[in-house]
Amino acid sequence: MHSPVYLDHNATTPADPLVVEAMLPYLTARFGNPSSRHEYGRTARQAIDEARRQVAAALGAHPTEVVFTSGGSEANNLLIKGAAACLRPGLIAISAIEHPCVLRPAEQLARRGWTVEQIAVDALGRVEVGAFQEIIARKPKIVSVMMANNETGVVQDVEWLAGAARRSGAWFHTDAVQAVGKIAVDFRRLNAAGVHAMTLSAHKIGGPKGAAALILDKRVDLEPLIAGGGHERGLRSGTENVAAIVGFGVACELAVQRRVEASRKLLELRSRIETGLRSLGAVLFGQGAERLPNTVFFAFPEIDGETLVGQLDRAGYAVASGAACSSANPEPSHVLRAMGVPAELARGAVRASLGPESRPGDVDGLLAAVWRTVARLKGLAAVAV
Amino acid sequence: MHSPVYLDHNATTPADPLVVEAMLPYLTARFGNPSSRHEYGRTARQAIDEARRQVAAALGAHPTEVVFTSGGSEANNLLIKGAAACLRPGLIAISAIEHPCVLRPAEQLARRGWTVEQIAVDALGRVEVGAFQEIIARKPKIVSVMMANNETGVVQDVEWLAGAARRSGAWFHTDAVQAVGKIAVDFRRLNAAGVHAMTLSAHKIGGPKGAAALILDKRVDLEPLIAGGGHERGLRSGTENVAAIVGFGVACELAVQRRVEASRKLLELRSRIETGLRSLGAVLFGQGAERLPNTVFFAFPEIDGETLVGQLDRAGYAVASGAACSSANPEPSHVLRAMGVPAELARGAVRASLGPESRPGDVDGLLAAVWRTVARLKGLAAVAV
Repeated sequence: MHSPVYLDHNATTPADPLVVEAMLPYLTARFGNPSSRHEYGRTARQAIDEARRQVAAALGAHPTEVVFTSGGSEANNLLIKGAAACLRPGLIAISAIEHPCVLRPAEQLARRGWTVEQIAVDALGRVEVGAFQEIIARKPKIVSVMMANNETGVVQDVEWLAGAARRSGAWFHTDAVQAVGKIAVDFRRLNAAGVHAMTLSAHKIGGPKGAAALILDKRVDLEPLIAGGGHERGLRSGTENVAAIVGFGVACELAVQRRVEASRKLLELRSRIETGLRSLGAVLFGQGAERLPNTVFFAFPEIDGETLVGQLDRAGYAVASGAACSSANPEPSHVLRAMGVPAELARGAVRASLGPESRPGDVDGLLAAVWRTVARLKGLAAVAV
Repeated sequence: MHSPVYLDHNATTPADPLVVEAMLPYLTARFGNPSSRHEYGRTARQAIDEARRQVAAALGAHPTEVVFTSGGSEANNLLIKGAAACLRPGLIAISAIEHPCVLRPAEQLARRGWTVEQIAVDALGRVEVGAFQEIIARKPKIVSVMMANNETGVVQDVEWLAGAARRSGAWFHTDAVQAVGKIAVDFRRLNAAGVHAMTLSAHKIGGPKGAAALILDKRVDLEPLIAGGGHERGLRSGTENVAAIVGFGVACELAVQRRVEASRKLLELRSRIETGLRSLGAVLFGQGAERLPNTVFFAFPEIDGETLVGQLDRAGYAVASGAACSSANPEPSHVLRAMGVPAELARGAVRASLGPESRPGDVDGLLAAVWRTVARLKGLAAVAV
């Protein structure tokens, strides 16, 4: 029996073989603690320095702007709560479609005297300019709008939004975890436009789980979430996960090098899926908005998304129903609800997210499996009626 | 040229080959996100479940009491700040010799209305019972005393201290990062005595960097440091570092299985170093207190610790001056200062920490290198005078 076809790259990605190869020595012979002042320590420290340069170069940042964390969730929590801890409570504005690791820390701030406002999105999942400007006029202290949504793949015009937020004096953060490697991401340019902080994650771009970064404009004061030995310029203490950070550096480099070519290929495959799904009667979410080249979010009216995902799994196709991180939660996607999608249709939502190793045959196989499954489920529904 | 002799196991340890072997599939083919509802996800989830059982079984805890984090620093910050966030500000008591990742979070609480009291230690680095009881009488809400100190290796009678703290109603936490695999650690027994939470770390016991745990009595309410998708029973969100957690499970199992035999061997080697160092005129810290079998903390009067560590590094021996995590900081060890060691002598402190792969030849070679280096440095000092 061969492995199921993996079409869930927005949940996590297989590590590139070059990434694993780069990591291995740091799991074995080069095991030193980067803070140690002997050869083992220096070897580990040099590896971290090199990875920092790789991440910075790939994202158009300066190495000193890279704060390594254990994951994207930690980086988002660090920015939201860390920045808030250095400010007097005020208004924080986040888009209604943020990942739970931005939404929940904002809720925690609400219990500490902050006012949290969610910025509305339109039917295609794009931040509503009017709603955004109205909130900006109320002078928020922190604004967070993700660059690309994990469920719909819809891309926000972060540069424009940051520019518009500028006069408010807010720290502007963007979660770019899903954007890197799929669309152009240049922190220098974003920073010039008014973005002060940006979150990345290794395991979404062919790197390992356990490494991520907050790219941070040094004018932003942050209180560390993890205080201690003073690692990462005092912003994130704890012995560095050297092997994962090394893998992250290589993954960033590869993802950015390969982006243009990979995106072209992904876009072709995405069109192939979308054409097929439309012909089968699926509703496609976010169509008409700028979207990531690898993401298709769809539903068949009257067919439960969880059920469809389970059937496709049995047929050998790994796809997701809503965000993987909240798959434990049977509530319909908060992203689709924010887009005004009726709860019943939202419950049907299924996400296919392609990766660099996806092939046309995978897409055709998925479409055939969807066709068979939907026909069977509709038949069952008809019988049940 | 062959690798330097590694005698810095309290800073970090080489991963056991069985640990690396167990991790590898999760860095490659089994790359799924444990939250995904397909075969890749289930495979990853099962691996996490198994590691949780291994960690729990090795430490005498229940699997549901294990909260995985990215490292010991995170686990300590989670307990200190997470528990405090669920309480009204009051008194927090920590020993004066805690790791910075307990000291610094306590300082952060001090800026949020908490009163932080440091519990004094005696000349051998043991918590002073009188000072402890005095603080307990003031009804602290959180108490944290480490099980074994990373610098001196001195072991506290945590069971007794927790029992004595019981009537205060405080949550009692112990950082057992340095204790596991070297002395007996049984959470069920500690919990019965009054310990509510305990920190472990994989990379100190032959596991990888990037995985650790807080073992937590469920009566303790914690606000998560990293909020989001609700992983780890809502206490620690973020995609799990599957490979590292798998390695942690295996490392815990091995460390506990091998402990008695390993400790006997370590103790013999430690005696060998100590006898040698004494004959060379070294001062040994914590002598007479119960100590970890692998740790020797010493100084030669009038010889700078950093200089000695640097010379030993060149001679092919990797040892530490004070805690690795604060090696960037040239201040004399806060642990030695708390023990009343004069600053001048404390500046001479050097730590050798043995591991399961340490051999008598390593110890003899270290002693010879110390002898040559100290003789030369004393000669230089004599010339300088």
